[in-house]
This record gives sequence, C-alpha cells and structure tokens, in this order.
Amino acid sequence: MATPAALLGHGGRLGAARTAWPNAPTPWLDLSTGINPCPYPVPALAPETWSRLPDPESLGALEQAAAAAFGVEDPSRVVATAGSEAVIRLLPRLLAAQRVAISAQTYGGHAEAWRIVGAQIVAPGDPTADLRVLVNPNNPSGRVLPRDQVLDLTDGPLLVDEAFVDVDPALSVASLAGAPGHERLLVLRSFGKFYGLAGARLGFLVAEPALAARARQALGDWPVSGPAIAVGLAAYADPAWATQTRLRLIEDTVQMDGLLRRAGFEIAGGTTLFRLTRAADAPRRFEGLAQAGILTRPFPWDETLIRFGLPGRELDWRRLANALESL
Amino acid sequence: MATPAALLGHGGRLGAARTAWPNAPTPWLDLSTGINPCPYPVPALAPETWSRLPDPESLGALEQAAAAAFGVEDPSRVVATAGSEAVIRLLPRLLAAQRVAISAQTYGGHAEAWRIVGAQIVAPGDPTADLRVLVNPNNPSGRVLPRDQVLDLTDGPLLVDEAFVDVDPALSVASLAGAPGHERLLVLRSFGKFYGLAGARLGFLVAEPALAARARQALGDWPVSGPAIAVGLAAYADPAWATQTRLRLIEDTVQMDGLLRRAGFEIAGGTTLFRLTRAADAPRRFEGLAQAGILTRPFPWDETLIRFGLPGRELDWRRLANALESL
Repeated sequence: MATPAALLGHGGRLGAARTAWPNAPTPWLDLSTGINPCPYPVPALAPETWSRLPDPESLGALEQAAAAAFGVEDPSRVVATAGSEAVIRLLPRLLAAQRVAISAQTYGGHAEAWRIVGAQIVAPGDPTADLRVLVNPNNPSGRVLPRDQVLDLTDGPLLVDEAFVDVDPALSVASLAGAPGHERLLVLRSFGKFYGLAGARLGFLVAEPALAARARQALGDWPVSGPAIAVGLAAYADPAWATQTRLRLIEDTVQMDGLLRRAGFEIAGGTTLFRLTRAADAPRRFEGLAQAGILTRPFPWDETLIRFGLPGRELDWRRLANALESL
Repeated sequence: MATPAALLGHGGRLGAARTAWPNAPTPWLDLSTGINPCPYPVPALAPETWSRLPDPESLGALEQAAAAAFGVEDPSRVVATAGSEAVIRLLPRLLAAQRVAISAQTYGGHAEAWRIVGAQIVAPGDPTADLRVLVNPNNPSGRVLPRDQVLDLTDGPLLVDEAFVDVDPALSVASLAGAPGHERLLVLRSFGKFYGLAGARLGFLVAEPALAARARQALGDWPVSGPAIAVGLAAYADPAWATQTRLRLIEDTVQMDGLLRRAGFEIAGGTTLFRLTRAADAPRRFEGLAQAGILTRPFPWDETLIRFGLPGRELDWRRLANALESL
C-alpha cells in the first residue's frame, strides 16, 4: 500500500499507523522519532506544580539551569518555551526575513513555519537569503557542521536548530548565540529528545537580549507548564545522567547498526538518537515492519531512505531483531 | 511600605511576596489568584504521556471532550492551547484590529497583548473600535453580562474571555462562537482556574473554522503537553465533579463573605472563585495580611480594593480567619 501522508510529515504518528495497519500486533513499537527511549526519570511532583500558576522565579531558575547546561553566560539570552516547535512557529512573526535558506532535506517544521507567513524558501547557498536555517546535527542525515564552519555562516542572520546536539554538546554554538559580536546567531535547543520526555513540551531559544525579550513578550507570562519546569530543573542539574546517557546511546547505536546491516540496510547517516538507512526496496521493508507493528520513518523526497529510532527495553530490541530477520 | 509593582500586575507572585516580606510566616497562603484551591485530582499518568510527542488523535480527543463540555457542536471550532494566555498573546497576530475596546478594570493581559503589537486601547463603548474584548464574568468585579446582551455586542468582532464561566456555565456563549451567523464571536475558555490546575497550562479558543485553523497553524503541531492532555481529558469527561465543585464553591463563598464582612470589608463583587472587597484602609489591611504570610491581590486603579481567592484546607480557613481578626 502507499504510505499514508500523515506518516511522511512527522514521526510519532501512531494514530495514523493504527488506522493504516489495523491488524498489526499491538502495542506498536514506535521507532519513527529520534526520542531517547530511556527517559530521564520524572521526579515526584509537588501538588503545587500542577495547581499554581508557574512563578516567574521558577521559570527564571529553569532558564538559569538551562543556560548553565548550554554554557550560556547570561541567562537573559535563554528563553524557555513549550517545546522548540512553539518557537519555530513564533520566529517568523519576530524576524522580518522574506527569503529563508533551508535545506529541503531537513526537519520540515522550519520551512512550514516560514511558508505560513508568506516567506520564500530558497536553497541553502542562495546569496539573496536574509535568514539561513541550519539543523546541526542535521535530521535525518546526521550531518554535522563543525563549530567554526557554523560561525563562518554568520555573515548574515543564522538560526541553528540544535535539537539533537545534546548527544555531542561540544558541537553546540549556543554559548555564543546572541552574545556581543554574535548578535545575528540564534540557537534553538530541545529538551524532549535527549531527555526522552517529548510530551513535556520544553525547548529554548538562545538569542540576543532584545530579541529574547520580544520572544518572552509574545509567549506571555506562563509559557511553560509547572510539571515541565520541575522536570527540566531536575534534568539540567544532573550532568551525570547526561554523561551516562551519551555513552549508552553510543553503545546502543553500535548494536543497532549491527542489526540493520545484517538485515541488508546500508547506514546512510544519523546521530546516536536515530539511524538513517538506505535500501533499494525500502518501501517494502517499511511496509513489512509496519505489518509487524513497528513504525519507522519514511521521507517524501527519497523513498530509499528509512529512519530508525532506538528501541529501549530488551523486549523491544528482540522484537525489532525478529522483525528485521523476517523481512 | 508601598506595594511591590510585581504584585499589582498579576496574582500568584509568591516570589515577589517573599522578597517584600522576608519575615512573614511560611508557607505563604496564596489568596492572590482566582484558582480553585481544591483541584481536580490528577489521574495516574502513563509514562507515554511524558515520553511521546502528543499524538494528534489525543489532542483531537481533548478538543472533542472540551467541545462537548462547552456545548460546541463542531469540535473543529475548538483549539486547545497551552493556557488562555498563550492565545491572548497570539490573537493580535491573527486579527487585524487596530483599535481595541477593553475596560481598564479587567484582566490586564488583554490590553498588554494588544499594546505589544501597537494597537490602540479604547474605551468599551467607543464606536470606532474594530474589536471589543469582554471578560464575562468580569475579573475582578465579577460583573456578569447575560447571554442576550453579550450577543447584542456582536455587531462587530467580539472576543469574550470566559475564564471564570465554569462556575455558571449557563452564562457561556461558547456554543455559538464561530457558528454560522456568529462568525464574529470568539470565546476563550480556561482550564486551570475552575479545575484548580493552573500549572498544567491548558486553555481553548472557540472560533469560526478558518480562524481556528490559522490559530492551529500558528501554534504548531504539539501545542499542549501530554500530561495536560491527559488531565484535561479526564476532567472534561467528569461532569459530576464539576457539579459538586460548583455547589462547594457557592458554600465556600458564603462562608468567605461572612469572614470578610465580620472583618469590616464590604463585598464589592466577585464570582464563587474570588471575592472583590472594598475598605477605606485596604492598603493597611493588604500589608497586615502580607505580614501574616497571606497574599491577596491589590489593584493599581483603586487602592480601596482587595481581591481574595478562597482558602482550601481547613487549616487555611482558620489561618485566614485569625489574620482577619488581628487586622
């Protein structure tokens, strides 16, 4: 069958998968996103976390903890948002860009957000662009641009989406974003992917203080939920968990690549949160996995590609291994 | 001492109160908001609520449950948002209004949101206004405009903020907002106040389908957190809790008015979620309560007014009663 359109736009669309393959074994194993399947443990939440309006002091403490984790000296440059998608949709209303350079083979939310406001999407190298968007590491290719090459691109306004950079924080330019001499550099950080808590909706914009202030104004006084503030505060204050997770993700990736190669996939790229594979008969393989209740991520621009997120539980690893063997 | 400016803008600012009265007994009793102090019980949350990107199907189910609770026939008119503040800040970017009629004595977030985009705030009766904003019941006066009088105002675009309407749902015009013949009527609903879960960040815009679609586009694919979707779904499917809560709030209000009157306050208005009081020496009383660790809400436009939220626990009722006696 043809892949449902809903599954070509974003990962995580289990509802659409259930509709398309009603007879697949349940529960579905969702490998269609790049979200860490072994999440940061949600701490016990005080009842006030739910009941009270989040206090500006708590929000400020979260922004400080995130700034420290990102290496940003001045926390006023760090704006907490309800997920990086919220700020991706907001930026076209704050920046005056008309011609935005975005690769066609990256996270689709950027182009979508700019198209909504009528901006034109141009090719990454286009000299007429008045804003360049770079996803680094890129999703889904995993292509990584070294820091100095990222900074070379700031001859004009540059938005760097670092949604997956927590797996390799040395790559991040967040510490410079909006700092004196780097006013044209904006960085987005995502909480949910590396910390495995995408449902919490937490992300950050790092930008020069005046733009950060405008973003705060546009988002209002309570941009992030009390539960998300509490879990973000705990997570960013726990560098040991982050270090351990980075190492585990590397080990899991090695294991994953072994499984995928044995099943005849070529590893075309990825980060330690997802693997991009290529196979001439990828549509057949995607379909076979879906019939086994395993959702992966196809891409509209190249039907030989499939992106795999990592399984978490031992059970899920075995289920994937079995399904890959039966393809 | 002069009341700190942070306490004149919004309720709930315990951080600022702690700074202003460092020697007040703790924990503070926060009566500065209109949030139900006996919240809807947060159900046990499946781990996926936190870990997965909220599925469009869950968000759709929440909007359906809310539509049913609001009496809205077509759920496509109901847009879930991360709190009604998020949509209050968004509307000036979706509507082209230049002259917005807003009472000076209502929730300040509306005027603030329109001023940010350069719109002019005019008086409620101003015939040159191209949008009218009505908070019904009004906050803090509690003034209520009957449904037919609200509908009389839709000779032009009308935004009705029904943040406190759950205490008296018969008053709501949400069922008509955006329906054929009522395209110029927009309604905002708030989850956190009546359900006592302001930290969850959940609110709704009810509007004609094309505007609702533009709001969805502007907010992006995951506007509400997984935990907020789960608790909202549970709460809107529980009309018995809502009915019981409405009755309890009436009883509590009677008790509250008795306490306040005995302490020499005049009841100037309110809803069953908050009481507006008047006293010639209100600043002294506000200060006395703050020194006792009880935060109430003063207003910049009339220093004889204090708004009181309701205490929840028996302990808190006694603490308030004692503090009022000592004023």
